Amino acid sequence: MTHKLRIGIAGLGTVGASVFQLIERQNNRLALRTGRQLQVTAVAARDKTRDRGIDVSAVAWFDDPVALAQSDQIDVFVELMGGDEGPARLAVEAAIRAGKTVVTANKALLAKHGMALAALAQQHKTSLFFEAAVAGGIPVIKTLREAMAGNSISRISGILNGTCNYILSRMELEGLTYQACLSDAQRLGYAEADPTFDVGGFDTAHKLALLSSLAFGTEIDADAIYVEGIDAIDPLDLKMAEELGYRIKLLGVAERTATGIEQRVHPTMVDRTKPLAQVMGVTNAVTLSGDAVGDLTLVGAGAGGMATASSVMSDLADVARGARVETFALPLEALEAAPRAPMQRHEGGYYVRLSVLDRPGAVASIATRMAERNISLESIVQRKPADHDKGAVSVPVVLITYATSEEGIRAALDAVFSDGHIAEKPQLIRIERN
Amino acid sequence: MTHKLRIGIAGLGTVGASVFQLIERQNNRLALRTGRQLQVTAVAARDKTRDRGIDVSAVAWFDDPVALAQSDQIDVFVELMGGDEGPARLAVEAAIRAGKTVVTANKALLAKHGMALAALAQQHKTSLFFEAAVAGGIPVIKTLREAMAGNSISRISGILNGTCNYILSRMELEGLTYQACLSDAQRLGYAEADPTFDVGGFDTAHKLALLSSLAFGTEIDADAIYVEGIDAIDPLDLKMAEELGYRIKLLGVAERTATGIEQRVHPTMVDRTKPLAQVMGVTNAVTLSGDAVGDLTLVGAGAGGMATASSVMSDLADVARGARVETFALPLEALEAAPRAPMQRHEGGYYVRLSVLDRPGAVASIATRMAERNISLESIVQRKPADHDKGAVSVPVVLITYATSEEGIRAALDAVFSDGHIAEKPQLIRIERN
Repeated sequence: MTHKLRIGIAGLGTVGASVFQLIERQNNRLALRTGRQLQVTAVAARDKTRDRGIDVSAVAWFDDPVALAQSDQIDVFVELMGGDEGPARLAVEAAIRAGKTVVTANKALLAKHGMALAALAQQHKTSLFFEAAVAGGIPVIKTLREAMAGNSISRISGILNGTCNYILSRMELEGLTYQACLSDAQRLGYAEADPTFDVGGFDTAHKLALLSSLAFGTEIDADAIYVEGIDAIDPLDLKMAEELGYRIKLLGVAERTATGIEQRVHPTMVDRTKPLAQVMGVTNAVTLSGDAVGDLTLVGAGAGGMATASSVMSDLADVARGARVETFALPLEALEAAPRAPMQRHEGGYYVRLSVLDRPGAVASIATRMAERNISLESIVQRKPADHDKGAVSVPVVLITYATSEEGIRAALDAVFSDGHIAEKPQLIRIERN
Repeated sequence: MTHKLRIGIAGLGTVGASVFQLIERQNNRLALRTGRQLQVTAVAARDKTRDRGIDVSAVAWFDDPVALAQSDQIDVFVELMGGDEGPARLAVEAAIRAGKTVVTANKALLAKHGMALAALAQQHKTSLFFEAAVAGGIPVIKTLREAMAGNSISRISGILNGTCNYILSRMELEGLTYQACLSDAQRLGYAEADPTFDVGGFDTAHKLALLSSLAFGTEIDADAIYVEGIDAIDPLDLKMAEELGYRIKLLGVAERTATGIEQRVHPTMVDRTKPLAQVMGVTNAVTLSGDAVGDLTLVGAGAGGMATASSVMSDLADVARGARVETFALPLEALEAAPRAPMQRHEGGYYVRLSVLDRPGAVASIATRMAERNISLESIVQRKPADHDKGAVSVPVVLITYATSEEGIRAALDAVFSDGHIAEKPQLIRIERN
């Protein structure tokens, strides 16, 4: 048996402490599986006195993660601090420069500096692993990098943020408002005090940027991602979705189109019979579409200390086996700088909910505006609203379009708005096949 | 770049021809991904003249797969002939003895001779890969062997046979009989002329034996699997399942219990909200339960030339990268000979459908027989059957039990039968949490 693999962990939050525990718990089995003993030899965290439920007295303690990253006491540097700058970035760079293998769960760091870090890793002939950075315990990185190696991938779509899926699930199942569900999510620890990063779609976008690069062999291009959050979703939209055979999910979607790579994050109407539509609560899921395998869907825990630690362990087992990886599956020089497919050119079906002023000719005029831009309607739903008798001046009208362009539907809705037939900004939700 | 990886394919059916095509189609990308060119240098099949949609004129042709397996012209032997004896077994053994890496899709061969082949591979210091042997294009082998390395796995359950899932899905959705759906499956090429191997649960059992070994670190023990097929499922059971919040699926389930490893294949009532219940048609799916990650579910194409070839390609890419694997994830001497948990000791809920003779006291007597064995009933459903007015002498009664033992429920039903209250053999379907 080769000499043991010495592991340094920077960041001892729930994920770091779980990794520490799993290495102890699985040690003999891991050694048999990988041919090598795994041992945590050093850790770095801010507060040495805090009780984390683990005994770190036998390992070297570093206050400075950069010092840990460069230490002769470790072979692998596990970065679990988070943050796209500061100590996390400095420490990962230092570890790579010192020739250490790096394992990280830091999606924000990779979305922002992934290309530079990959270049540094290539230059220093070391590997950067990040299974835990996307979709918690779901092995989506390994699946894209290795299992689908024989496929050309055309599309990935995923529920990559548990907070958003929790909120949308509860809104749907209990008919609650966005605000009420967000408050519950905050109380239960599923959402931060400032929830913008999650509910605004930015966390999903970071993860999508990484998956997109792996799927298409392209450079990370997080700035190209169109991002829309879930805060404008109304209980009425969820009710209409149900009636029309859909569920609303915040999806990250990346797709090869005729014009380039389209990357977008937004609430989406998903056919209720598709696997992604079945995923409720904090669970994550991702569907990968390959030319050989067809649609492959992975469903599992998207967050939580132990689930995320499971992915860190997957990387550590690979390292122990002696696996060498290119950070984004291909050598840097082989990654394409793919053209961005602009959102205006997106083609798909749309759900449009309008608050139509209750006067003769309004719906006819709206339908005409659609027709002028060759937008075909699959269905129109207009109902007498519950509060109509109380003197409401507008009624909700829902239109489902056949495939059309983002540009076209936006122009049509601008025209509808100018005509003065609607009382407020239209609600627009894209429809996806899966 | 290292010298190219020379591949020999034995068996040019739909899977073999698809692998041949994918290697050509993905060649440049694969070389970049793996650091090595992949090239098919030789093939073996029965009929050289048959049109398979591929051009094999540039590769060496072998009539004898054993000769191909031993040939100096190949580094990897890809076995896609099938069969648990005969040429497939001889050729795989010959390849291993010649020090070749072997990639196979042959579940029957591995379920029967897996331990011996693993021993041979270990002795000859070579690797035996079999991603394509289980669940077609779903990367379940890689996930168990690598991605879940940090987990203790407690349970696996899966829809591993597309034919059965197609038949059950159509029976449910269209209210058709088993025979009608089987005939359609045969017409569409989803089922063989002699369907026993699929519908009897034996194909599922072969796959389960392999997953079980990987999940629990145990020796392959296919003979220990309790197997029940789908041919006794009545449309009425599917209707009752729907009413009670379940779907009926043929599952392969392997579980660590207090008494050992329980392995079983049988029709199962699955909670409709669980991922496996959502899987319809020929699609496969498997849920892996680990102590760190929780439940991980993979859904995808379980059969078909290209989907299965995708898994062969995953193995070939690993070989090209220089991966070495223990056949069943651990060195042979580390695999436990786990005690078999006998089916009589299985504990779970049961769906029981009885054809009760329509006379006073029958249901009371049945309930008493259950109570005598401490079997608690969660629900009893008795309805006036549609044909009651035409003078039917028996009525269907459905019982749902809380968790009890297989032994207990069987003894209770034997007593009910002896009492003379039921007209035919009871229908018994096990209930699973996922």
